[in-house]
Amino acid sequence: MTIASALPPLSRIGILGDGQLGRMLALAAARLGMRVHVFGPDAGAPAHEVAALSTIADYEDTDALIAFARSIDVATYEFENVPAAAAATLAQHTQLAPGARALEIAQDRLSEKAFIAGLGIPVARFLDIPDLPSLKRAMAGRFGAAILKTRRFGYDGKGQIRLTGGEADSELEAACADLGNAPAILEAMVPFAREISVVAARGRDGTVIAFDPAENSHRDGILATSTVPASISPETADQARAIAGKILDALDYVGVIGVEMFVLEHAGKSDLMVNEIAPRVHNSGHWTMDACITCQFEQHVRAICGWPLGDATRHSGVVMENLIGSDIDTWPALAAKPGVCIHHYGKREIRAGRKMGHVNILSPL
Amino acid sequence: MTIASALPPLSRIGILGDGQLGRMLALAAARLGMRVHVFGPDAGAPAHEVAALSTIADYEDTDALIAFARSIDVATYEFENVPAAAAATLAQHTQLAPGARALEIAQDRLSEKAFIAGLGIPVARFLDIPDLPSLKRAMAGRFGAAILKTRRFGYDGKGQIRLTGGEADSELEAACADLGNAPAILEAMVPFAREISVVAARGRDGTVIAFDPAENSHRDGILATSTVPASISPETADQARAIAGKILDALDYVGVIGVEMFVLEHAGKSDLMVNEIAPRVHNSGHWTMDACITCQFEQHVRAICGWPLGDATRHSGVVMENLIGSDIDTWPALAAKPGVCIHHYGKREIRAGRKMGHVNILSPL
Repeated sequence: MTIASALPPLSRIGILGDGQLGRMLALAAARLGMRVHVFGPDAGAPAHEVAALSTIADYEDTDALIAFARSIDVATYEFENVPAAAAATLAQHTQLAPGARALEIAQDRLSEKAFIAGLGIPVARFLDIPDLPSLKRAMAGRFGAAILKTRRFGYDGKGQIRLTGGEADSELEAACADLGNAPAILEAMVPFAREISVVAARGRDGTVIAFDPAENSHRDGILATSTVPASISPETADQARAIAGKILDALDYVGVIGVEMFVLEHAGKSDLMVNEIAPRVHNSGHWTMDACITCQFEQHVRAICGWPLGDATRHSGVVMENLIGSDIDTWPALAAKPGVCIHHYGKREIRAGRKMGHVNILSPL
Repeated sequence: MTIASALPPLSRIGILGDGQLGRMLALAAARLGMRVHVFGPDAGAPAHEVAALSTIADYEDTDALIAFARSIDVATYEFENVPAAAAATLAQHTQLAPGARALEIAQDRLSEKAFIAGLGIPVARFLDIPDLPSLKRAMAGRFGAAILKTRRFGYDGKGQIRLTGGEADSELEAACADLGNAPAILEAMVPFAREISVVAARGRDGTVIAFDPAENSHRDGILATSTVPASISPETADQARAIAGKILDALDYVGVIGVEMFVLEHAGKSDLMVNEIAPRVHNSGHWTMDACITCQFEQHVRAICGWPLGDATRHSGVVMENLIGSDIDTWPALAAKPGVCIHHYGKREIRAGRKMGHVNILSPL
């Protein structure tokens, strides 16, 4: 199915996933006069609260997915681990954006790395690790310091183990066991100077617009802050945007993507290496909500509805701070601080490591 | 009832009224992690679409109002013509903000003018016109050029008739008849240089924060544009804010108010005169959605929930343009323009004079 022209306001957007990204997509869609239908398994989850129409069902419930698809004009998703069968069902009964190919590639770290490397974009040295023997062979062959990652279902540092390169066989066995002996990928440790990300959108007409690169810091494997502007040169920023554009074009992508990159510095020169991509709105793009003319959520809605992409110009300096777990309890103090925009996801239960909200701290340009 | 401390996120805010102001309040509440319950008579109206919980009922339905009040932590409203009985019912069963007194005063142009004048704030010369004989007496007494307005239920220029001061008795009779012989007020025409408004908030602790004054233009009695900054001196802007603060304090107000003013210029000096007040978020404050750190809708939610008021700093220059009636059909062109933030209210039917959406056109400071 193709959309002949843009979906007008009052069209119905189906959002697969009921977390905070779905919630913020729904709020952005509403600003454009769109209606939304949220589909997700958890009645208490953030996105259901902001939509008049929602379906509480599992992603494996084909009948529910078909009914959902028939009620909407376009479907999108807030997470990359959409089951392939669910994506196929949606694509069969409605327009799905971004498409199934982006999901397929991003769901598997090995195909993701191979895809990006195949575009001539630098990535960390990597090896397919289908089993323990292949891990032993790799490390015996002096692969060096590395991160062993499951190919599928890793996020926020989960499904990852750091290796120094000097592990005994018993330690390698333990590492594989820790990952449930799942198919894995071995990635060389990269001596990066900083981590950045580019959140970019591609419209149905192929237009690409990238937001300014953000500089990211992590804590316990979870994004802690995104700062814009990043401490990189204008040339490096342009290179970063160009890399994101190349990936979007190669995927014939429609929607917003997050591209995480490492900045390597040597001899006064900066090189970029792509770490991973996320075929959806991205936590490191939350700063756009308060610092840009168009935010990433609206940009995604515009793209999947066939609208022209919005103006991504940034009007303020900004630091985005995630509120993880009990960080959210500081809301009264945050609410009293000048320059602070609070976003609370309305989650009912605080859990360690859970993303509960974020703040954007603005400063004049 | 009083709220001992601030209502935390996940509290339930009841919004009386299902129009675009209710919709934008609901979206702002969601950003702060609040849940909303929308109450209004029209199932297809803008606000119902963005809330998981809504009641479709008339404002005269006391049982529905009581159930609504019992389901929420605080009630507010998006329009000043809330029936007194409905306001009383809500105030009896939950916290109502802004309070009943603001409604009472703002619902009646005569009590509104008397109240403002009583604070020592200049208003246009006015006279109570309970009936035709009093209108005839006033005009015979050389009241001069004036506007005859119904005391109640006027908005967007409705319920108003301009008089030159030279009308024959038959014309005065026709004027009263046009207003349904409703109790009216006669206001002297004011030779103003420009119209401005101040949207300001007062918190539960009595703190007042005003947004920058906006300069307004009207077309056919309906707000057409709000431009910020207004073409007034910093001193006049300070006076305008001070007037809004005085009104808020006198009403012991909690929430956002809109105060419309005339700027009169003579001998190089500017004087301010209050035209009217609206005890709610205001169309002339829609520019705050994209040009300020905190917008008027979030500010209202913060106030009624007992939060500290947000930072009202403006980060951009802005022109707000209302999209009235078929103006909304220009959305594809507007969506392609740089610097333009679109807000579409999701109304299903375009009608002449109906507010369908607005755009905020941003420029660097």
